[in-house]
Amino acid sequence: MADKKMYELGAVRSKFSELFEYGQAQAAKIGWEHIYDFSLGNPSIPAPDCVKEAIIDMLDHKTSREIHSYTNARGLLEVRQYLADYMNETYDAGVGPDNFHLTVGSSASLAVIIRALQEDTSDEFIVIAPFYPEYRIFIEPIGSKCVVVPPDTEHFQLSIEGVAKAITPHTRAIIVNSPNNPSGTVYSEDTIRRLAALLKEKSAEIGHPIFLISDEPYREIVYDNLPILYLPHYYDNTIVTYSYSKSLSLPGERIGYILVPPTVDDHAYLMTAILGTARMYGYVCAPSTYQRVIAAVRGATADISEYDKNRHLIYDNLTKMGYDCVYPSGAFYLFVKAPDGNSLQFMENAKKFNILLVAADEFACPGYARISYCVDADMIRRSLPAFKKLLALYK
Amino acid sequence: MADKKMYELGAVRSKFSELFEYGQAQAAKIGWEHIYDFSLGNPSIPAPDCVKEAIIDMLDHKTSREIHSYTNARGLLEVRQYLADYMNETYDAGVGPDNFHLTVGSSASLAVIIRALQEDTSDEFIVIAPFYPEYRIFIEPIGSKCVVVPPDTEHFQLSIEGVAKAITPHTRAIIVNSPNNPSGTVYSEDTIRRLAALLKEKSAEIGHPIFLISDEPYREIVYDNLPILYLPHYYDNTIVTYSYSKSLSLPGERIGYILVPPTVDDHAYLMTAILGTARMYGYVCAPSTYQRVIAAVRGATADISEYDKNRHLIYDNLTKMGYDCVYPSGAFYLFVKAPDGNSLQFMENAKKFNILLVAADEFACPGYARISYCVDADMIRRSLPAFKKLLALYK
Repeated sequence: MADKKMYELGAVRSKFSELFEYGQAQAAKIGWEHIYDFSLGNPSIPAPDCVKEAIIDMLDHKTSREIHSYTNARGLLEVRQYLADYMNETYDAGVGPDNFHLTVGSSASLAVIIRALQEDTSDEFIVIAPFYPEYRIFIEPIGSKCVVVPPDTEHFQLSIEGVAKAITPHTRAIIVNSPNNPSGTVYSEDTIRRLAALLKEKSAEIGHPIFLISDEPYREIVYDNLPILYLPHYYDNTIVTYSYSKSLSLPGERIGYILVPPTVDDHAYLMTAILGTARMYGYVCAPSTYQRVIAAVRGATADISEYDKNRHLIYDNLTKMGYDCVYPSGAFYLFVKAPDGNSLQFMENAKKFNILLVAADEFACPGYARISYCVDADMIRRSLPAFKKLLALYK
Repeated sequence: MADKKMYELGAVRSKFSELFEYGQAQAAKIGWEHIYDFSLGNPSIPAPDCVKEAIIDMLDHKTSREIHSYTNARGLLEVRQYLADYMNETYDAGVGPDNFHLTVGSSASLAVIIRALQEDTSDEFIVIAPFYPEYRIFIEPIGSKCVVVPPDTEHFQLSIEGVAKAITPHTRAIIVNSPNNPSGTVYSEDTIRRLAALLKEKSAEIGHPIFLISDEPYREIVYDNLPILYLPHYYDNTIVTYSYSKSLSLPGERIGYILVPPTVDDHAYLMTAILGTARMYGYVCAPSTYQRVIAAVRGATADISEYDKNRHLIYDNLTKMGYDCVYPSGAFYLFVKAPDGNSLQFMENAKKFNILLVAADEFACPGYARISYCVDADMIRRSLPAFKKLLALYK
């Protein structure tokens, strides 16, 4: 009646959905004020006012046709020109409008770039644990192998040795995600340099380029004044995927882009393959209103300092209680070790105290759990006694 | 460096793009006022005011989080409930919110439903000429055969005999599109009844259901008070794909849905396969602002009577001049016969008089050309002397 593989992809809606439904049901019983939901990556900080202003300005000063018409499949030229200018000013990127393909968000960007790069099903794609579980869904159903590099549980950087071991003559690309979901860590410049050196060496060895896909939905969400690195400066064959879901708090609007810099081998060929893949997957253009919004707001972000306050609130308190937490330097996730190493049981135990968090087994990093702190600070404060009780279970 | 098949899909951007670029270049030379561009299906009538009002109301009365958060992957429950209510009131459809999956427009709906239905690559999908050329792109790159039923050039309904011949034991689904792009015709109730009878008979014969995919982006754009048929009333295994691109003049915003009514065999299984396919293709949810807009405007459409005026203006005048036109009863396209049967040459000749129209060779119907009359009426008026000169070439 329908494809079994597709059915299974739809049916296995992951622990997130189960937890979401549990939360809904529990809230109906005891009220949301007694639920401490740290399970989702839905930004809590509002989009900056300039988003609303840009939309109203557009509605007031442009015709319906100007706002709502089909755009070029790659995105409006003036928006891609703005993106190029912004990246050149901010990162000295040396890119032009034709290096961008606007998409319906990061998942779309990744699904499209992975399929565009796949020359045949023997191609392999490497992911670094812990990783966003959807990566696998963009790789395996098209027939490719998803090769997982085990987590570096010492520093939550990435294991260069692990990557070296994962590379084979079939390696097409490697996906990195920094700031990282779910670990909340940011790869250091040293990590990037070492990764770039390895990829250069291995590309030469296997006789074709290994592409580095840098998935950057959390790019601007870094703390402690950490620098934001532009990865194509370190490795020529870097493709960047970006989304406005997190930095601009617009996850439901579906707007992002793929950037293939001119340093990428045969970049024009790849841009055309991206166009073809987007066509085959049924993408016509990114939503036109929000294409214009991202150009209008000129690099604005939601007030990230609010996440920084949450970060201190939850990290400092949980650490003080005795939880073993990975120091969070980016995104809005705190990665915490299950006290006895059993993260699935830890997730279940947390539910007893109405704390919803996600076992990192989903992220290929068992033994840890992800706490999303893109929530109201007040909920964090109210949750602290529950976290204390949860830890007491283990003592 | 990238997949050759994907490259080719991107590179062959069709006659539309070529014509578009030609138009731009020619306009730069002689000015847009001297170009008669009938090549695109970009609605000329503005979105109704209620769209703007709904957006402003939302921005004024809802929080950023309420407007812009991720929604359920199938779409907001209240929006799907609204759609169910609307379809039940308007067509006595007998559907509920779980029969809908909101998408990023018709192309997304079709790409997803075709892949969800494909059990293996031996599955065949039937399309009826003339047809929207992207159908082929959603079928062939996933390894299936796109079986084309030749056009019924007598009535531009569909040839039941042609469909009967096209069906094999591998037939998975057939796509129909009424009101039709590019012919501008609407299938009669008699046509639908005969098609339904054939599909019932053939499904029994081959031992599995043949799904009818009814692609309805022009559903409400019908003239002469023609009734709008709800195809699931005629054939149980009908899946409906809908888009707000045309009826609400929002093509750039990418919002539409797949409707799998409860009459469809194993409809819940199929809905789950749709969810899985959408996931694999990188769709997360339909744009949240516009999900809410379609519920807020409660079935409103752009002022279709304006297209009706254009229809008379162009059909009456071209017919009077001596063009052989298919009587247009829906959508906003006039299908005209190339005077000597050579439609590609006709398109080239039209360019000599700065008329941009599309040879229907693209739509698997050589010998005809498509004139999109979703344009300013004044342009139609100004174009008439050029059409006269074009026809004179053939005398």
